[in-house]
Amino acid sequence: MYTLLKKDGNARRGRLETPHGTIETPVFMNVGTAAAIKGAVSSMDLKEIGTQVELSNTYHLHVRPGDEIIRKLGGLHKFMNWDRPILTDSGGFQVFSLARLRKIKEEGVFFHSHIDGRKIFMGPEESIQIQSNLASTIAMAFDECPPYPAEREYMKDSVDRTTRWLERCAAEMERLNKAETTINREQMLFGINQGGVYEDIRIEHAKRISAMDLDGYALGGLAVGESHENMYRILDTTIPYLPEHKPIYLMGVGTPANILEAVERGIDFFDCVYPTRNGRHGHAYTNYGKLNLLNKRFESDDAPIEPGCGCPACRDYSRAYIRHLLKAKEMLGLRLIVLHNLSFYNTMMKEIRGAIENNDYVMYKKQKLEKMKQEEK
Amino acid sequence: MYTLLKKDGNARRGRLETPHGTIETPVFMNVGTAAAIKGAVSSMDLKEIGTQVELSNTYHLHVRPGDEIIRKLGGLHKFMNWDRPILTDSGGFQVFSLARLRKIKEEGVFFHSHIDGRKIFMGPEESIQIQSNLASTIAMAFDECPPYPAEREYMKDSVDRTTRWLERCAAEMERLNKAETTINREQMLFGINQGGVYEDIRIEHAKRISAMDLDGYALGGLAVGESHENMYRILDTTIPYLPEHKPIYLMGVGTPANILEAVERGIDFFDCVYPTRNGRHGHAYTNYGKLNLLNKRFESDDAPIEPGCGCPACRDYSRAYIRHLLKAKEMLGLRLIVLHNLSFYNTMMKEIRGAIENNDYVMYKKQKLEKMKQEEK
Repeated sequence: MYTLLKKDGNARRGRLETPHGTIETPVFMNVGTAAAIKGAVSSMDLKEIGTQVELSNTYHLHVRPGDEIIRKLGGLHKFMNWDRPILTDSGGFQVFSLARLRKIKEEGVFFHSHIDGRKIFMGPEESIQIQSNLASTIAMAFDECPPYPAEREYMKDSVDRTTRWLERCAAEMERLNKAETTINREQMLFGINQGGVYEDIRIEHAKRISAMDLDGYALGGLAVGESHENMYRILDTTIPYLPEHKPIYLMGVGTPANILEAVERGIDFFDCVYPTRNGRHGHAYTNYGKLNLLNKRFESDDAPIEPGCGCPACRDYSRAYIRHLLKAKEMLGLRLIVLHNLSFYNTMMKEIRGAIENNDYVMYKKQKLEKMKQEEK
Repeated sequence: MYTLLKKDGNARRGRLETPHGTIETPVFMNVGTAAAIKGAVSSMDLKEIGTQVELSNTYHLHVRPGDEIIRKLGGLHKFMNWDRPILTDSGGFQVFSLARLRKIKEEGVFFHSHIDGRKIFMGPEESIQIQSNLASTIAMAFDECPPYPAEREYMKDSVDRTTRWLERCAAEMERLNKAETTINREQMLFGINQGGVYEDIRIEHAKRISAMDLDGYALGGLAVGESHENMYRILDTTIPYLPEHKPIYLMGVGTPANILEAVERGIDFFDCVYPTRNGRHGHAYTNYGKLNLLNKRFESDDAPIEPGCGCPACRDYSRAYIRHLLKAKEMLGLRLIVLHNLSFYNTMMKEIRGAIENNDYVMYKKQKLEKMKQEEK
């Protein structure tokens, strides 16, 4: 149950009540692809850095360890010992980006597992069944994620099929949420808007899926290679056609600047691998731009990554120590930098929520971008 | 200052007071070679599993990040944020096992760094200077660690040189502990007994180094390829010639069974990479033998690694989850198994201390070995 608490321009301060607790929005979900955050970050660590929602990947968990095993173990929450909300993606994005030899048909997609080459079929029903086995809080509809750029004709056909798939997803979810053997019988379903950078296809699709009474709506197929300007334009033109009293999720986005811009346009949910991926390259987010901790100038720098930051890495360890760990390929280095980066994102979302509450979002965004501008260099 | 609190047979319950706190012995030191425990285990994690002493490697820290940098940052305790005792080895073992093109002379050893090939010289004075820069609680004397097996003649010459080196170490330590610029002016020095499996050389050497008033004594050059029987025989014959009122450290040992046998013979300090190294191979220690968590039988096993174990891995996660993490190459899997294994060792040492206090060591050892015998298979 989503409540729109406050608007500041188009920026929205909301709240989504779920069987696994309340999500304060705008929110950045922390990505744990295979039921674990990269960098040896545990679910206990996530609590310490204020993570609200963990995101896992249906495709990855289906191929390993298998959703039936997770179901047998009581679902994903119990499996990874995380009692707050979990969102699972539909597997669609991974099928279209990771798997080999895929064949798209009306009933779904045939493909080969990237782990062992095993032939797998996944359609809307299968995706929802897997997500029901995982028992996540929020399931995503199974969609086609078209390549960028895609021809207009291809995009139109693809979006039409995605709409038909969404109807099948909703029907399957309704059926499973009624079944007594289902672990989470209040599982929510978010539909996904597609259409690439074609405004009219986006709008038409947004209207069609808004007519279905779903728990939330996502914008998919963005941040896949188009310019930031194109992405912001699509948000500006599409969001007005999505229901105001449902949460809106911009999938796979993005940099702190992307998030600040998208919140201003009305986005409530985000997820992105940047905080973890950048950690692997020694990049730490701060309010004064990104630091490359591999840089020699941090060799004997006993300051924390960001003075004043309350994350476990900044509370207990110095830049010099973390740099040493990264150079020595000690896994602890990655863990500390990932903890800091996720904490940076989580903290920024908290600031964003506060700014909207105070009717101060535009000024907050301007100042935050100003401070961080080194990052854009 | 070491106090022998209680003897049960030859097993010793002791206490070593240090400027960084008290060490209750027998103790197992947790190895963090490059100022970090393998598996992204942080110094905060170590506190949670009851670690008393962390052990770091002088050679590794000298070549990276450099002991001068750690000195500038206030020493190893501050660098890795660990306020309990730290023991540093002398670098000797690594110079003789890791470094390339070494040349042993009376003044010390010339070798090439295994990181960048840089030519380095390390002698007794250099080793102690580096350890003084690191400001560890306990420094180890710089010794030659002869290969196994070694000819009697070679061993004799080597041990003689090690004795001369020990005298130089002690003099250098005395000088540095008086210097105002030294971070830890109460740094302790342990000497190292060598002699391979030649009982008479071991005994002769033990007598000579016992005559020097050192803070503790170690047995080196064991667990390097000789049989367990040979190792136990050397302990039986050598320990009586070491001072009773000083702590005795068996370097690089070992399996739980090795530790139980060595405690019975009078050893107070241990260190070993097994808990971390075995973790990397999916092996978890339990009181009922080692588990290989990669085994398919744990695929949907929702029990903790060892029921009743209070470590963070057993408290929060199942065998099935940890197995999944290991299979998926998620670093969190290694972290959890290493936390458990170190906790297993730390807990066993606590039991050992209790058994000695209760005059029950022989029975305790018998029962513990009986339970764990699967491990020996």
